[in-house]
Parts: sequence; C-alpha cells; structure tokens
Amino acid sequence: MGILDRAIANSVPVIPRPIVKRISSRYIAGDTLDEALSTVRDLNEQGCVATIDVLGESTESKADAASTLKDYERVVDALDEHGLKSGISVKLTGLGLDLSEELCRANLEEIVEYAGERGRFVRVDMEDSPYTEATLNIVRDMHERHENIGAVLQAYMRRSIEDVQRVIEAGFSVRLCKGIYDEPRSIAYKDFDTVRQNYIFLLDELLKGGVYVGIATHDEFLIWHALRLIHQLEVPEDRYEFQMLLGVDEELRSILVGAGHKLRVYVPFGEDWYEYSTRRLKENPKIAGYVARDVIGNITGKLKR
Amino acid sequence: MGILDRAIANSVPVIPRPIVKRISSRYIAGDTLDEALSTVRDLNEQGCVATIDVLGESTESKADAASTLKDYERVVDALDEHGLKSGISVKLTGLGLDLSEELCRANLEEIVEYAGERGRFVRVDMEDSPYTEATLNIVRDMHERHENIGAVLQAYMRRSIEDVQRVIEAGFSVRLCKGIYDEPRSIAYKDFDTVRQNYIFLLDELLKGGVYVGIATHDEFLIWHALRLIHQLEVPEDRYEFQMLLGVDEELRSILVGAGHKLRVYVPFGEDWYEYSTRRLKENPKIAGYVARDVIGNITGKLKR
Repeated sequence: MGILDRAIANSVPVIPRPIVKRISSRYIAGDTLDEALSTVRDLNEQGCVATIDVLGESTESKADAASTLKDYERVVDALDEHGLKSGISVKLTGLGLDLSEELCRANLEEIVEYAGERGRFVRVDMEDSPYTEATLNIVRDMHERHENIGAVLQAYMRRSIEDVQRVIEAGFSVRLCKGIYDEPRSIAYKDFDTVRQNYIFLLDELLKGGVYVGIATHDEFLIWHALRLIHQLEVPEDRYEFQMLLGVDEELRSILVGAGHKLRVYVPFGEDWYEYSTRRLKENPKIAGYVARDVIGNITGKLKR
Repeated sequence: MGILDRAIANSVPVIPRPIVKRISSRYIAGDTLDEALSTVRDLNEQGCVATIDVLGESTESKADAASTLKDYERVVDALDEHGLKSGISVKLTGLGLDLSEELCRANLEEIVEYAGERGRFVRVDMEDSPYTEATLNIVRDMHERHENIGAVLQAYMRRSIEDVQRVIEAGFSVRLCKGIYDEPRSIAYKDFDTVRQNYIFLLDELLKGGVYVGIATHDEFLIWHALRLIHQLEVPEDRYEFQMLLGVDEELRSILVGAGHKLRVYVPFGEDWYEYSTRRLKENPKIAGYVARDVIGNITGKLKR
C-alpha cells in the first residue's frame, strides 16, 4: 500500500467494494481497453477530446512498472488504430518512482517517445505531496527533449505559487486542478474560498505567462473566472482547454462545448478501480448521499424479506 | 400566456390572488395613473427620481400594442403636466414583439420620439431569453436615431460578457441587474456567487467603457463594489445612477440618496399586477415567509372565530 493509498484511507471511511463498484460505474469507462475506446468514441462524437488513464495498483517491482508501460503503449496503438482524439495520463508511481527515480525516468521517456512518434500527448498526473518535487523536476527535464509532455499543478498546495514561475520559465503545459489528496495543513490550504482564490490567481499567472493550461474543474464559479480571464487577456484558442472527469456534470460539459471551447474528458479504465472511485466518492458530497441511500435501501430491503 | 409568463409559472407555486394583492401592495403604486403620479411625487420629495412601468398582460393583437402605446403617452403627458422627475420603462412584448418585429419597432420609435420631444428617457426592460437578442438589436438601432433610449443587461446571463462589448461600442445606457426569470442552466448562471462576480465584472467593464450605467440592485455587497468602482475609476456623477424597485429596502435607498448619489425608483402601476408581483415574491425569500404567515394567520383567525 503506497503513501498515496494511505493518505486516502486516512480520510475516507471504508465503503464496501460492491457499493463502490455500482456507484462509481459512471466514473469509470469499464474494466477493459475496449470499453475505454468505446467511451472515447462517444466523447469524440459529442465534440470532446479525451485523455486515457490506466487504473493501476501500487507498483512493487520493475516488472509491475514494465507492465504499466506496455499497457499504455497498447492504449496508444489502439487510439491510432481507431483514429480517436485522445492523449494519455500517467502516474509516475505507476512507472516505478517509488522503486528508483532512474527507472521511472527511463520508463517515462520510453512512453513519451512512443506517444510522441504517434502524435499523442502525455499528461503526468500529480500525486500526493511526497511526489510533487520529483514529478515537476522529471517533467521539466523530459520537456527539454520532448514537446508532448505536461504536468499538473494543484491550487490547494501552498507551494504552487512558486511552481507556477518554474512552469512559466520552462514553458510546458499544465493542468490546473484544486487537488484531491488529504494533505497536512502545513502543505495545503484547507479553506474552500482560499483554494478557489488561489486557483484564480494561479490561472491568471499561467495564462499571462503564455502557458498552455488545462482548466480542470467542475466548479462553475472557477469556470466563470476562467471565461472572464480568457476574455480579458484575449487568450487565443490554442492556449487553453477545459478538462472534466468522466461522469461528472455532463450538462456543464455540453454547455462549454456548445460555446466553442475545447474540452477534454479524463477517462479511467481498468480492473483497479477501487482507489480512484473512492477519491471520487470523497470529492462529491452528493455521492455520500447515494452511498447512504444504497446502504439503507439494502437494509430495508432485507427487513422486508 | 406568453413564454415569459410560462417561465415564471413553471418556477413559482400558485399563490392566491388576494394574498398576492395584499402583500404586493407595497411594490405597486396602485391601479391608476394618479396613484403612480402621487408615488413619484413622494419619491421626488425624498430626493429620488423614478421610472414608470405600465403593468400589462400579454399583447395578443395590434390593438393591444396600440393601447399600451397610448397608455405610455398619457404617462409622459402627465409627468410633464405635474413637473415630475421620471422616465418610463417599456417592455417590447407589450409593444407587439411577439406579433411582428416591424410593428414593435414602429411602436417603440413612436414612444421614444414622443418621450424625447418632452425630455423623457425610455428604458427598454429586458424580458426572458427568447427576447434578449431582438431587444438588444432593436435598442441599438433605435439609439442611432434617438439619444433617449437604453437597454438592460442581466448578470445571470452567460452571454452578457459579450453583450457588454456591443453596448460599449454602440454607447447606449444600460441598466445592470442580476436577472429574475427562470432560465435554463445552459443560458444563465445558477450559482449565487458566480452571478455576483459576473455583476461586478460587467459593471467594471461598462464603467471603464464610459457607458452610463443604472446600477440596479438591492444587494449591499454589489452596492459596495459599485461604490468602490465609482471611487477607484473616478466615475463622474453624470455616468451612473443607482436603481431600486418600489417597496424594497427604503432604508438602503435613503442611505444612498443621503450620500449624494442619484437614485431611480422603478414604479409599476396598473390593473395587471399579478405577474409582476409574483416575480417579486419569488425573488425575495422573506416574502415567502410573509405569505406563509398570512395564510397561517387567516387559518388561526378562522379557528378563533
């Protein structure tokens, strides 16, 4: 169990796997690559682009990391074969960052080259705070040799205000999100409004700095601020995109696509759906209600029998 | 029943007319023009200016629209006769927009000319979203020939950020309000904070663009932002006014007047008070409490008898 999983386990009550599976089915394309491809095809038809995430358990050996690498190469091949509009999203722990930074760098370079030769973009997901520094350094170094790589900054991180300057200097693409891991207060802002204000501030800086930004949020208030900034700063269409998670607020997605904005949907698939789904459940208070109703429904169902 | 009325009916529970009448009496000057004139005289004595709205039901014929036109000409005559400080507010559906845009344009031009010759300003109220585009186009065209006409922008509308630019280019006066119709999410922001932020942003743009703005709100937070912008941008006195509805927060009204700001009160009168009043009831959650107490009061009163 990785540090990431521990951080999540600390903050989320344990929810039985069958319940998580049922509730989270809308957030996961499925167990198989074919299901992911089918989801991406639907999204493309709706005017969205995608990024595919292969859900993975903790990587405990060189072989695990090599297997993840091969999974992503299969994804890239399949995207090509089917002519789908999608990049990939990878996690450095999945490529062996806990085992050896050198191994991780080698694996990442292989996948970035493989994807680059086929015109695909590789977004390196941000994990919890022990990985922030290494992840940004690795992406910065890799970006010196490969254009098709970008990182993620999280608005809840106190350090992000500094990281924005490094990103602007290096000039690589950034996905900006609020952040979802359970971080200590010394590392991350805990106040909702502060995280929002920091998001707006960081986005403003990134756009002014000419960075290509993936504006990753489902918060209408932040999307409004993004639209305002795009308008005020006259940000050209090829310098930003909106990003949303599969299964979240499809109405808002269609509003943005309808208004002519590029929108990318994060499409996770694979058999290791439990951790990802638990993060989504934690993030969305409405979901907690579904869980409660589901549990209560089961209990009352049993009482009736 | 027009689209406007349907939109309202969809979102407001039906409240019995006698209750609406009693509660809404403070929001309506009365059934007759004389009562409206008396209200305007009182307001003028309190240091406020006014704008008179003739309440009207849906316009189903050319004769209905002509009748509305004559009503407004009588209002303008009476304002002149009594030397009162007030303009008029008109709705384009009342002037026949649903019947024919040409008819509506002709009626509006007649009323704008009539008012203009007597030094009166004509504010074209904004109705619900099916009318937004036509209303702005008609006001823009009319403003090329007549100075004494202006429109309304609503902060809840997603399109307003674009409309502000059109208004600045055309240079006509705008009343800025939050918006009160029940619009779909694809058209209007639903989040309270987002609507507020958009209001502040639009006001900032309008004032910087040199547009004469009617700052129409009872929201202290927005009024504070307006005062801040007026101060920071050094907006001259002849480039803005505050606007409030009759019967809403008279204390705030007197605070603004006491501080030396121009303040215009929207004064509706007429026999067709039900729709206007229902919008007011919907807008103000406190009013819902009055309705409840009123109903309960009646029931308990009957029980005592």
